[in-house]
Amino acid sequence: MKILGIDPGIGICGFGLIEGNKMLDCGVVTTPINTPLPGRLEELYNSLREVFDETKPDVVSVEKLFFSKNITTGISVAEARGIVLLVAEQHKLPIFEYTPNEIKKTLTGYGNAGKPQMQEMVRLHLKLKTIPKPDDAADALAAAITHDLMKR
Amino acid sequence: MKILGIDPGIGICGFGLIEGNKMLDCGVVTTPINTPLPGRLEELYNSLREVFDETKPDVVSVEKLFFSKNITTGISVAEARGIVLLVAEQHKLPIFEYTPNEIKKTLTGYGNAGKPQMQEMVRLHLKLKTIPKPDDAADALAAAITHDLMKR
Repeated sequence: MKILGIDPGIGICGFGLIEGNKMLDCGVVTTPINTPLPGRLEELYNSLREVFDETKPDVVSVEKLFFSKNITTGISVAEARGIVLLVAEQHKLPIFEYTPNEIKKTLTGYGNAGKPQMQEMVRLHLKLKTIPKPDDAADALAAAITHDLMKR
Repeated sequence: MKILGIDPGIGICGFGLIEGNKMLDCGVVTTPINTPLPGRLEELYNSLREVFDETKPDVVSVEKLFFSKNITTGISVAEARGIVLLVAEQHKLPIFEYTPNEIKKTLTGYGNAGKPQMQEMVRLHLKLKTIPKPDDAADALAAAITHDLMKR
């Protein structure tokens, strides 16, 4: 079963495709910071549709929005997340959502694990030589791995 | 110039089309509360595309998100707003955004005007016999009127 993990964002949206312990693909979709928001949302929509068409996942695992730090960033993440969920639904895929804490707890056993620890667990779980880059791609892979572990 | 005002929301999304002081159309797009979010976002996307196709606006005026009351509602409004902006951009329309305070101030001269006062001003401005219903449609018309008054 191919799981596509997504870390939603308007400037950088990470994605990572896994099947069991194997990483099949990962990367990010970016939109230009100097473009008005509606144009960025449309670029995100078009790019994500390409990612879904090319990776052909069986299921999607999306990091759930959790407002704690920055409310302005939070709004734009929610707008981007609306696009992510729309594209997943248009591809008629089962969608699962996990909070950052659930993802951290599933990968490391500790809900407040730091980023280096999380990235190392992504690397180990997928038997990679190096940590996937950029961070947003690694975060997306962490969401995919969480779904894989939760559903076993 | 036909202005389409939109009051974004996931459960009820209001729209109102005006040309000068004339109301051409208004209504709401709704999504079923018992459906998972991605399905609702897709319904919103499809219904809004129909609204845009049928009303053929020249410009879109969207109520801007303003988080003060309920953060959970705010997230779902932001997700819905992402869809609204996407559809407007896909129709290659100029998009303007106004905060609730800007809309209230433009229609009544007072940024904290209450709902009855706002609705009465919408009725007067559009020379209607009764206040447009439901509230979300009246709010959308208020956004359209705001753009009309601001751009004169």
